[in-house]
Amino acid sequence: VRTPLWDDLRVATVRDLGEAGVVEAVAARLTGGPQVLLGPGDDAAVVAAPDGRVVATTDVLVEGVHFRRDWSGPYDVGRRAAAANLADVAAMGAVGTALLVGLSAPGELPVDWALLLIDGLRDEAALVGAAVAGGDTVAGERVVVAVTALGDLQGRRPVRRSGARPGDVVVVAGELGGSAAGLAQLMAGARSGPLVQAHRRPQPRYAAGPALADLGATSMCDVSDGLVADLLSLTTASGVAVLLDVAAVPRPPGVTVQQALHGGEDHALLATLPPAAVDAATGLGAVAVGHVREGAGVRDLAALPLRPQGWEHWG
Amino acid sequence: VRTPLWDDLRVATVRDLGEAGVVEAVAARLTGGPQVLLGPGDDAAVVAAPDGRVVATTDVLVEGVHFRRDWSGPYDVGRRAAAANLADVAAMGAVGTALLVGLSAPGELPVDWALLLIDGLRDEAALVGAAVAGGDTVAGERVVVAVTALGDLQGRRPVRRSGARPGDVVVVAGELGGSAAGLAQLMAGARSGPLVQAHRRPQPRYAAGPALADLGATSMCDVSDGLVADLLSLTTASGVAVLLDVAAVPRPPGVTVQQALHGGEDHALLATLPPAAVDAATGLGAVAVGHVREGAGVRDLAALPLRPQGWEHWG
Repeated sequence: VRTPLWDDLRVATVRDLGEAGVVEAVAARLTGGPQVLLGPGDDAAVVAAPDGRVVATTDVLVEGVHFRRDWSGPYDVGRRAAAANLADVAAMGAVGTALLVGLSAPGELPVDWALLLIDGLRDEAALVGAAVAGGDTVAGERVVVAVTALGDLQGRRPVRRSGARPGDVVVVAGELGGSAAGLAQLMAGARSGPLVQAHRRPQPRYAAGPALADLGATSMCDVSDGLVADLLSLTTASGVAVLLDVAAVPRPPGVTVQQALHGGEDHALLATLPPAAVDAATGLGAVAVGHVREGAGVRDLAALPLRPQGWEHWG
Repeated sequence: VRTPLWDDLRVATVRDLGEAGVVEAVAARLTGGPQVLLGPGDDAAVVAAPDGRVVATTDVLVEGVHFRRDWSGPYDVGRRAAAANLADVAAMGAVGTALLVGLSAPGELPVDWALLLIDGLRDEAALVGAAVAGGDTVAGERVVVAVTALGDLQGRRPVRRSGARPGDVVVVAGELGGSAAGLAQLMAGARSGPLVQAHRRPQPRYAAGPALADLGATSMCDVSDGLVADLLSLTTASGVAVLLDVAAVPRPPGVTVQQALHGGEDHALLATLPPAAVDAATGLGAVAVGHVREGAGVRDLAALPLRPQGWEHWG
C-alpha cells in the first residue's frame, strides 16, 4: 500500500511513468477514426487508403526553435503540429486520414504536457475526420515533435507546385501574417489576443484544398514559409512569373503588409486556377491576389520584384 | 567572384548550405522507387497503396540516446533507422513501400553527415523495394532522426500481437543478442568486428514477415526491446503463456544467453504459428523456440519465470 501524500503533491513526469506507462496513457486519450483500421498497440498502424494511393508528409517541431514551452501550451503545440501537416495534405488536394507522432522528451517533462500535446493533435485531426494512429516516445534533452500525416486523394490527381500556367489566377484561401504578428507580440511580452492566438493555433482552410483541386487548380501549396517565399517556390517549379496584387492579400486586423507578405506558419492555401474557375473559388472563400505570366519571379503590380524575407533555420 | 581557398579547406556544414541547399542536395541522392508516385518537391509525397490499406509506423532516434556519432557513422545510422521501421512493417505481414525522414540537426553538422544518413536510409529501403519519398529538415541542438515507414499488405490480414493461441509454436526469424553484444564491445573500446557490425547495422529478415503471415502466423512482432520483453508483450496482448526453450534461441558466436534473451534492436521477427505450419517456417529459416500455453507470462522449460531486463528510456 503506497502512501499517497508526498507523491500526489508533485507533478508526475514521464520518467515517473516510464515508457510503457506513457504509451498506455497516450493510447487511452485516443478515440480512433473511421480511416484507422488498426491503431496503437502493434508494430505498425493500418490506415485505409481507399484511393489506392496515400498522401504522406512529415514535419518536425523542435522546442526553442518552433515553439517555446513558456509561449505555447502543449495543447496548442499539438494543434499547430497537426495543422502544419494536415495543411500539406490539403494542399495536394487530399483529405487527411491519420497522424503518426514521434515524441522525444526529457525525463522531467510533466506527463500532462505530453497528454495535452496528444489531445491537441487528436482534436486538430478530428477537424478533417482523421485520427492519431500510432507513434513512438523516446528520451531526449529537448522536446521534439515529429508528426507524419497521411491522406486520401479520393480519386483526384495530386495538385503539385509545378503546374501553374500563364493566364492562371493566383488565389489564397485563409488570411496571412497573423502568426508572424502574433509571434512579434509574444516577443514584445503579450500573452493573449487574437494575433497571439493566430500564432499559437493557425486555422488552415482544410476543405479548400480538395475543393480547389476539384475546380481545376493547376498548382497549389500551403503558405508555411511566407507568401512571397512560397510563391517563388511555385513560380520556380512551374517556370512562370507571378504579378502579386499586394493590397489584395487577405490579412487580419493589426497585421502589416510586410507580415502578410513574408510571415510564415499561417498555413493558408495558395493556388493557381484557370480564370473561368475564379468565381467558384471566391464563392468558397478564396481571394484572388495575382496573375500568372510568362517569365520568372514574383513582382508587385508596379513590376517591382518581391524577394523572400524568409527565416533560415541555421541562420 | 568568391575566393575558394579558405572555404574549400573546411568542411561544409548544413548552416553553410542552408535549408534549401540541404533539401536540394538530399533530393539529388534519392532514386525514387516503384511505389513512390510523387517524391520530394511538393507539400506531400504520393505513395502507391494498391491494397487499399497502408501500414504506417514511426521511430525516433536521438543522438546520445540511440546512437553516438563517434560509434556509428551516418550511413549506418541511416541503415539502422530504416531497418527499425521496415522491420515493424514486415512484422505486420506487409512489404515496405516508402520512407519519410524528419531530421533535426545542429548548424555545425557536416553536410556529408546528413547526405550519408540519407544514403543509408535509401539503401536499406531498397532491400525491400521501398524508397525515400519525402521529409523535413530543421534546426535543433542534437541530431534527431524521425523515420516513418509505409507498407502494403498485398491483400493479407495484418498480423497483430494479440492472436497467439494455446498450442501454437513460437518461432524466431533472425539471430538475437548481436546488437547488445556489439554495444557492449563498443563500450569496452572495440570499434570493429562482426558483433559491432551487428549493432551498427542490424539485418532484419524482411521477407520472413509476409511469408510467415502467409503460413498463418497467429501473432507477430519484431524484437526491438529484447526477446523476453517482446514475448511478454505478445503474451499479454494474446492472453496466453509461453514456454521458451532458451537453448534454442538463435544467437551469433560470442553472444551470451542473457544478451540473446534481453538484448534489443536486432529486429528479428518473432511469431506464433499453428504446429502444422512449423515445418514450412523452418524451411524459410525460422527457428522454433517455444510453445504457447494457457496462462500468462514467459517461462523457461524448467517453468522458471523469465522477466524483461529491458532498457528504460528515462531510467
